Amino acid sequence: MASEFDLIARYFTRAPRTALLGVGDDCALVKQPDGLALAITTDMLVEGVHFFPGADPRALGHKTLAVNLSDLAAMGAAPRWATLAIALPRAEEPWVAAFASGLFALAEREGVELIGGDTTRGPLTMSMTLIGLSPPGLALRRDGAQATDDLWLSGCTGEAALAVMRRRDEIEQSAELARQCDLRLDLPQPRVALGIALRGLASSAIDVSDGLLQDLAHLCDRSQVAAHIEDAAMPRADAVVAAGAAGEQALYSGGDDYELLFTAPSGARARLAALATRLNITLTRIGTITEGRGVQVLAADGRRRDFTKFGFDHFAHA
Amino acid sequence: MASEFDLIARYFTRAPRTALLGVGDDCALVKQPDGLALAITTDMLVEGVHFFPGADPRALGHKTLAVNLSDLAAMGAAPRWATLAIALPRAEEPWVAAFASGLFALAEREGVELIGGDTTRGPLTMSMTLIGLSPPGLALRRDGAQATDDLWLSGCTGEAALAVMRRRDEIEQSAELARQCDLRLDLPQPRVALGIALRGLASSAIDVSDGLLQDLAHLCDRSQVAAHIEDAAMPRADAVVAAGAAGEQALYSGGDDYELLFTAPSGARARLAALATRLNITLTRIGTITEGRGVQVLAADGRRRDFTKFGFDHFAHA
Repeated sequence: MASEFDLIARYFTRAPRTALLGVGDDCALVKQPDGLALAITTDMLVEGVHFFPGADPRALGHKTLAVNLSDLAAMGAAPRWATLAIALPRAEEPWVAAFASGLFALAEREGVELIGGDTTRGPLTMSMTLIGLSPPGLALRRDGAQATDDLWLSGCTGEAALAVMRRRDEIEQSAELARQCDLRLDLPQPRVALGIALRGLASSAIDVSDGLLQDLAHLCDRSQVAAHIEDAAMPRADAVVAAGAAGEQALYSGGDDYELLFTAPSGARARLAALATRLNITLTRIGTITEGRGVQVLAADGRRRDFTKFGFDHFAHA
Repeated sequence: MASEFDLIARYFTRAPRTALLGVGDDCALVKQPDGLALAITTDMLVEGVHFFPGADPRALGHKTLAVNLSDLAAMGAAPRWATLAIALPRAEEPWVAAFASGLFALAEREGVELIGGDTTRGPLTMSMTLIGLSPPGLALRRDGAQATDDLWLSGCTGEAALAVMRRRDEIEQSAELARQCDLRLDLPQPRVALGIALRGLASSAIDVSDGLLQDLAHLCDRSQVAAHIEDAAMPRADAVVAAGAAGEQALYSGGDDYELLFTAPSGARARLAALATRLNITLTRIGTITEGRGVQVLAADGRRRDFTKFGFDHFAHA
């Protein structure tokens, strides 16, 4: 399963020395003197790879922060400070004004302060580093899933990927479904409050950014467990149902969802139900963690469903 | 003097809220519970803008960290943790291995831990965020210069810019001078130990990355003072002298020097001389801070020297 992408990332992975947690989770964790930990994440968005050329700058500003917020959410960390490096082909003030307005609208809503940055000429690229705070013993790591845990998903997956497919003329959508899917792709709403509320409740978590099955495989790999998804339990948005086979592909392997996938002991079910009500978020128990390795999707008749495409790999798409 | 570049950077600049210092200095400062501050900086390097296409990957790995170390040095902060986002056109393992070896060699020497990152496909771009620690009251900010302070420069400027000029066939150099200038361009040695030693001694500091005059203008602007440089006092490397008029241009406006430019009261001269000896670094008193605004270079006869090109602006070069 290791792609060239994985191989390359490994060159930058060394065992943590002073850090509590280094490369390989949603965030790194660095202990602070008062016992809190800094949770640190970085994400780069490149035109033509992560977004379409000519994308709305206000949405890009939102998304640059949102994808990093999602990583902090998956760690259960409270976001605090961000730095932004941005390369622009041209110095276009209206573009920058719109980008900044999208970025700061979300930053203010989530209590994030932009404290530093770098602006340069170059192919349109945004790179953000986001720093949050987390009680280290309660951080939602990828490596805490236990056999017999329940597997949970916030919201639903697939709509952002369907928007990509429609813009590439691979599928058609009604105007109403298109609008909903575009919102999911362009203005993702990271699950920051949920991540913080899951401290001490979830045994592990990851954000779904590269496709549900691929991200679940990362979580299982780090936790050294297997996972079974019950296909019938999966939450399916109207657009996913309407898109048929493409919808199933998007549901399991689409990417750009920014939902939280997490595990919790079965004893936490009542508290999770109450939490879902309090935050007005759908939380769905989609499967089970077991001994072993690997990820399986089981149809209603107990047979295994197979998928040709497992997830999203930037280099595999090259 | 404001370029489109400056105008754009301003869209991302808001007054700091919880941060001690936000956008506009070499680093941002964020107070920690134990009274230390986190010093945070970010720099992006783009192929064809900050380095030549086909540049040696080992040198690029070194330089990606070095330019960020230089920002921390200018703040007097001790480097600790880094994140790296990198976009690569192709997944070439030998390139990545060489890049990582250059990066980690410098990281180990300077005690930096790479704790997170992002690897993606895209035009060759590196973006690093570096976090250090600093006693906030002793941080070397840009805004502390006082009229009557001395103006100091570590090492010398101009050699890196001469290497760029030679590679563009704008000048010729002897093999020995070329080798020395290439070293300065490809493997800059940031002044980390000097920055830390200047805590409590320097009244302000900035690192020289965009050209001496431009960076001095930033420092004067933030401190609301003027500066006079005595041309005859400027340290000139052999390559600068050999290059004549191009050498003078490189000396004052070249960029990529990664030296420290700092101010200190005249009472600090003896301690700075002792420090230079202890660290085996040349420290040169190149001028004086005065009341007023602006930067002037005074020739030996007291007349003002003029320069057509004031510094380096990525967009101005577009």
